[in-house]
Amino acid sequence: MLDTSSPTLLLDEQKVRKNIERMVKKAEANNLTFKPHFKTHQSVQVGRWFKNNNVDKITVSSIKMAEYFADDGWQDITIAFPCNVLEIDRINKLAEKVSLSLLASDPKTIAKINTSLQYAVQIYIEIDTGSHRTGLRPDQTEVIERLLDQIQDSVSLNFRGFYSHPGHSYSAQSKEEIRTIQRRAVSQMQRLKAHFEDRYPELVCCLGDTPCCSVGKKWEGIDEMSPGNFVFYDLMQAEAIGSCKADDIAVALACPVVGTYPERNEIAIHGGAIHLSKESLKINAQPVFGRIVRLKDDFTWNRIVDNTYVKSISQEHGIIKCSAPFFERIEIGDIIGVLPVHSCLTADTMKGYHSCRTADIIDHLQATH
Amino acid sequence: MLDTSSPTLLLDEQKVRKNIERMVKKAEANNLTFKPHFKTHQSVQVGRWFKNNNVDKITVSSIKMAEYFADDGWQDITIAFPCNVLEIDRINKLAEKVSLSLLASDPKTIAKINTSLQYAVQIYIEIDTGSHRTGLRPDQTEVIERLLDQIQDSVSLNFRGFYSHPGHSYSAQSKEEIRTIQRRAVSQMQRLKAHFEDRYPELVCCLGDTPCCSVGKKWEGIDEMSPGNFVFYDLMQAEAIGSCKADDIAVALACPVVGTYPERNEIAIHGGAIHLSKESLKINAQPVFGRIVRLKDDFTWNRIVDNTYVKSISQEHGIIKCSAPFFERIEIGDIIGVLPVHSCLTADTMKGYHSCRTADIIDHLQATH
Repeated sequence: MLDTSSPTLLLDEQKVRKNIERMVKKAEANNLTFKPHFKTHQSVQVGRWFKNNNVDKITVSSIKMAEYFADDGWQDITIAFPCNVLEIDRINKLAEKVSLSLLASDPKTIAKINTSLQYAVQIYIEIDTGSHRTGLRPDQTEVIERLLDQIQDSVSLNFRGFYSHPGHSYSAQSKEEIRTIQRRAVSQMQRLKAHFEDRYPELVCCLGDTPCCSVGKKWEGIDEMSPGNFVFYDLMQAEAIGSCKADDIAVALACPVVGTYPERNEIAIHGGAIHLSKESLKINAQPVFGRIVRLKDDFTWNRIVDNTYVKSISQEHGIIKCSAPFFERIEIGDIIGVLPVHSCLTADTMKGYHSCRTADIIDHLQATH
Repeated sequence: MLDTSSPTLLLDEQKVRKNIERMVKKAEANNLTFKPHFKTHQSVQVGRWFKNNNVDKITVSSIKMAEYFADDGWQDITIAFPCNVLEIDRINKLAEKVSLSLLASDPKTIAKINTSLQYAVQIYIEIDTGSHRTGLRPDQTEVIERLLDQIQDSVSLNFRGFYSHPGHSYSAQSKEEIRTIQRRAVSQMQRLKAHFEDRYPELVCCLGDTPCCSVGKKWEGIDEMSPGNFVFYDLMQAEAIGSCKADDIAVALACPVVGTYPERNEIAIHGGAIHLSKESLKINAQPVFGRIVRLKDDFTWNRIVDNTYVKSISQEHGIIKCSAPFFERIEIGDIIGVLPVHSCLTADTMKGYHSCRTADIIDHLQATH
């Protein structure tokens, strides 16, 4: 029996498996190699559910995460984060064991790792298709040429292709907006591919974010997809971006009710920023830190309660603004579910999951490292 | 030698000890019992630095934290969070070992724990002096009377006094604003004390937040103070609220530089929301997720770099908008320091510290539980 007397992150395995299968099929239908990003779940057990779907290549966002999954037998790992030259010793250790792909977009990075690498790695050049976070703009073809020359001169580096995370899809507010962003990103990648294909006929293009991978329709010229968040989804995807249904959200934080405030129809829960993270949405000009669901006897959950949301959080406290009918039914000592705004961060702070039907504990990288 | 090749939370022990000593003296000067809140550092080692200053009573925000510090020998612990009736078994185990104080402000909570308590505990009634998070308003004297009757009828419960966390001080923007909030909170507590003193001549009043405790001047009628954040302080305290100087900030996240973008004077670091948390300040209408400091050879740090700040973060990435002179001096492979906006959350996500001068690892509750 599951102990939910303190904040507990519930994971609905059935929903997770459905989310995985849906994305596997989408990749298949578009002839894309599926290299799911494991930064959201950070769990070897959840990773094995992907393996059951014949996934054998994965993406991660740090050397620590790469080591964790390599220890569980993953043999083809891409670290989709600008290569950190200071971690060269760990990169070498890992490259000895697995087929490792790194991201780079700076000649200095390439020069520095080239002198210290003892094993072969693959290099993706990161392309900024509009998020303006990291990577080269697609029109910086001269810098790209220079990087390719450096890679060609190296014995350890092999050019794999171009990688882009069009993270500006996170500011989209409808499926149509996401599709516009995705079409533009795909066109940019296509043009790059056309430009360099003569020299590198084997080069691949990889596109990475959950909104584009969930609803995007244009994939010509793209070879690989590496979304991450879709494994759990969250309120940001369901309510702000529109890339999933609320019913697809596969994790919920079980929170004990510790106070009721009839004069303001509010309740206090144990469940704050160290559980949910401080990520919020703006809905009708109000910050929303989570939506509320009633838990069933097997710790799965019902649909979202109307007009009820986490209006503020501090380190351990969550304050919920309730509809009048919901408030009437809540008592101190009840346990309610909170759907997180950003499941990647909630999973990271909670450092593990409880499978809601079986009460099994599901591991998370942060619990052990 | 300290390894800062991946994000590392640096702790400057000298600054921490100075922050502790300053607050110890402030409590002494105002005849206040000092019951520091340990939610910020969550570290038995940092806790021992308080012990060296003759502190023997502490405040925490969860049963988990109380258990952790009880295991290190702390004998007088207040859980400054609305008592969670579902945790009664753990409360009983702890109350057997230590002098335990709980917060309550609801007759149902009192009724439920009263039937299951096997050991004596002290009860603070929580008062909402304006933050509107939890607790009773000071004018709800009838409910307070009812709680006091319940407590008097109980064999396990002992009324200790009134507790308030005037958390609305966090929206203050100057010392004068903090002092206005603090004066009002103290007046409210004084009136409550006067109202109930005949019946309970021993009752104490405890006031809890870092802004009020740092700069507040009116303490008549208050018996105890329990601030937490002051042990490290952070950018929110220094820049938004004005309760400390930037030089008092005692933790900094060491982050490797992984990308430079000359066309926008920006750099990318390994250091994102899973390290700093997603807490931000608004400065000149721009969100700021951290300020930048150059690290010295002993891993302490210089003053804040002008016109340079973390402008956006995602899970692992931080993007820093730089002044032109600072940008010129930064290279891929450098390590820079980031002062966090909210040190409690940064400490919680990082789950441990590296003492910057000695390279010792300093424990954190979340690393082990």
